This record gives sequence, C-alpha cells and structure tokens, in this order.
Amino acid sequence: MSLEIIPVVINKEIKKGDDLAKVFTSSYKGLLDGDIIVISQKVISKQEGRLVELAGVIPSLLAVGIATEYEKDPRLMEVILYETKRIIRMENRIIIAETRHGFICANAGVDESNLPQGFVAMLPENPDASASNFHSSLQEMTGKKIAILVSDTFGRPFREGQTNCAIGVAGMKPINDYAGTKDTFGRTLRTTAIAEADELCGAAELVMKKTENCPFVIIRNFDFSPSSDTAKPLIRAEKTDLFR
Amino acid sequence: MSLEIIPVVINKEIKKGDDLAKVFTSSYKGLLDGDIIVISQKVISKQEGRLVELAGVIPSLLAVGIATEYEKDPRLMEVILYETKRIIRMENRIIIAETRHGFICANAGVDESNLPQGFVAMLPENPDASASNFHSSLQEMTGKKIAILVSDTFGRPFREGQTNCAIGVAGMKPINDYAGTKDTFGRTLRTTAIAEADELCGAAELVMKKTENCPFVIIRNFDFSPSSDTAKPLIRAEKTDLFR
Repeated sequence: MSLEIIPVVINKEIKKGDDLAKVFTSSYKGLLDGDIIVISQKVISKQEGRLVELAGVIPSLLAVGIATEYEKDPRLMEVILYETKRIIRMENRIIIAETRHGFICANAGVDESNLPQGFVAMLPENPDASASNFHSSLQEMTGKKIAILVSDTFGRPFREGQTNCAIGVAGMKPINDYAGTKDTFGRTLRTTAIAEADELCGAAELVMKKTENCPFVIIRNFDFSPSSDTAKPLIRAEKTDLFR
Repeated sequence: MSLEIIPVVINKEIKKGDDLAKVFTSSYKGLLDGDIIVISQKVISKQEGRLVELAGVIPSLLAVGIATEYEKDPRLMEVILYETKRIIRMENRIIIAETRHGFICANAGVDESNLPQGFVAMLPENPDASASNFHSSLQEMTGKKIAILVSDTFGRPFREGQTNCAIGVAGMKPINDYAGTKDTFGRTLRTTAIAEADELCGAAELVMKKTENCPFVIIRNFDFSPSSDTAKPLIRAEKTDLFR
C-alpha cells in the first residue's frame, strides 16, 4: 500500500504555553488510527519556552575564547556550551557537540532559523517527554491510536547535506530490527536494523521544508510496531561507536 | 500537497542483462511527469552481473589475515578488499571502508542478503551511470519527465540503525541548498542544505522493506529541481570531513 506524507499548515506562530494538540486539531480534522504525526523540534522548543534572547546572555571567558577562535557570537557560544555535555569536534567554524540528551550534532542543537531576530532556540529539555505529552493529549482529543516523532535536522559525517532525524518518540518502536527474519531466499538476515523513525522524519522533512508554516506532518499507511520505546535506542553507545 | 510513496511489486527475480525499464513498465503503468523512481542497488547489481560466487574466490594472504582477525569468511574479505579504496575503521568485527566510488560504508558495500546461497553482491560499477541508463530508457519508453535514484542501506556514526541513501542520481539535484533563501521571519537561512536524495531513498525504504519483491518505489508530488547532477555532491570531501 502507498504511504501518504501529508503536510499540516497552521496559521499561527507558536508561543510559549500554546496547546499543541489544540493547534493541530484545529488545523487538521481527518486523523486516522495508525497515523504517525511528525512534529518539528522548533515548535516544541517555542511551546516550551526554550528560546533565549542573546541580548540577555553574559558569555563566560571560555565562551568568549572559543567564539573568537571560531568566529561565533560569544553569547551564542555561551548558549551552545550550556547545552553541551562534551565537544566532539571543533574545526572550520563548526562545532560538533554531544548534547545533554546524548545527540551528536552541530552547535549542540542551538539554532537561529525561523526565530525572531536576536533569539536562538535550544532543543526541548526532554524531547521524549514532549513527544509523550503530545501523544497523550492528541490521543485523548481524537480517540485515535497514533504515534509521535519529534524531528530535527542533523548533519552527518561522510555525506554532504543534512537529513531529519527523530529526537523524540512516543507510541512506536524507532528501529525495525530484521535480525532473525528471512530474506526472499529464505536466508536469515543478520545485520539489518532500520532506523525507521529517522527515515519517517526525513520523509516528513520533504514536505515540511517545501511548505510555509508546516510544523506537523502526518504519515499515513505506515505499519509501525506500537511500543512504549523512546528515542534512546537511536543513540549509539560510545563503546560501539567507531567514530568518537 | 501530499507526497505519495508507491511500492512497485515485480513478479520475477532479476537476472544479468534483464531490461529493467521493461520490467518496470510491465509491472507499473501509470507513471506521471515529475515522478521519482527509487531503485534498489541490489537489482542493479544483479542486472549488471555484479554477483560473485564465493566458491570461485581465492583469498589473498592479506584477506586471510584480516578475516581471521575479524571472524569473516576470507573469500568474502577478498571481495571486500577488491572493492575498497581505503579502510576507514576496523573493529568489533565491523569493517568500514571507502569504496572505489567514494562511499563510506560497512564492508565496502559488499553484501549477502537477498541473494542465492554462496553469492555476494558488489555495488554497481558506476551507480550514476546505472541511474542515467535507467533514466534514459524509462523516459524513452514512457515519454515522462522523471528522476531516478539508486538506493542502498548504510549505517552511520553516532546513531543506531541504518537508513537508505542515494548512491546514484539522474535527473534531479540531490541536495536542496537553502543558502540565500529567507526563513518565515525574513532572515536569510545560512547553513541549511538538505540531502533530499537521501531522504527520498529513506522514504522509499519504508515501503520497500515492508513489501516482498519491491525493488522500485515511485515518489509522486515531490517538486524536485531537474538537473544533470550525479550523486557526487552527496559525498563529503575528505578535507571538510571532521570524522576521517
């Protein structure tokens, strides 16, 4: 069966404390059992008040030092350091950091796009909790069995360009592990485990970025495995990561 | 507008020399202008005769040495080395290699799944040429303006699970660079360049893996930029890669 990737356009700017489930249901009526809703990290951050006005930030000496070396705004650098558990690489004006959540991404996920001038956004405090809250509210309001993915745009080693990845998950298994299943020749597939949550967020991005004011995307007809998993299984443990 | 991700099921096993455009058009009739066809690397490799029977491989001393150390079949290791330009990491039975094409992936893209017992498949000799040939044949047979992506399943650092990536491109720009465009606040987006070809292959994977005998997927309603680009822009140059 064909998948449908449906953009949901909203007509308001999300503010701190907004009820995202209400915003969603007032913009889209036809939710079905089995739908996955992908929501952009940015609207969650806005709704949770994770915006920082740079004018109010006093950079530490460390932030000033790094900012000078890497040609960044020292106040932005201060926010990045605040969100950083560990710096993985710093080079060519690029800072790759492990965030407090365990994600490895540029600038520890702090970013300036689609925000009022002078503000930056941090990742949600706990994107799995954000996904879970939205999941509960939306299931309660609509009575539908759904899954939720919180999506952000990450770069990656080896390949140019960014792709969207899941940073919060509710209601589904994020990885489909084919270990033990048979291929079309009856042989056991040994090492295939597909990060479906990331592929779903990438698919959603294809309509999000091309549409104005589209923080929600519905993915229909994808047969996911219901689960109480979070996004944690998507984070590779340091000891099995050959590139840290 | 919603994207549609349409699996195309075929009722035959692809053999060397098969006409893939004929196989496609005999399985699917309704191709439209603007469709993207994602085709799995594995059927291209089969069609191009890139299968190797391990019984006929005589491993070199180097292959035997590495295979012993990393608990691999020495004949498989010989094929991997044949496809390898450079080994990037070797650890925990995992070999990450740069292929002759410049892709960085496990086992230099050599793999055993969905193949007759005793055979392994190498990546296509030149996946961009494979995409381009399929593109020309299919456009000629159908008269439709389309784009083609050749897709393979790659692991990645930092995150668990694999996702599909484009290794061959014909008819479209693989990366959508938003540099210079404005965000919804009228600010210039500085560093967003989306690897749409990879996200499209990931979206296709979501229906491919869940469907038996589905080597082709059609992506409909995605407004791509027609181009003579190949997959080369997706390969990060070593000098800008912080993880090699």
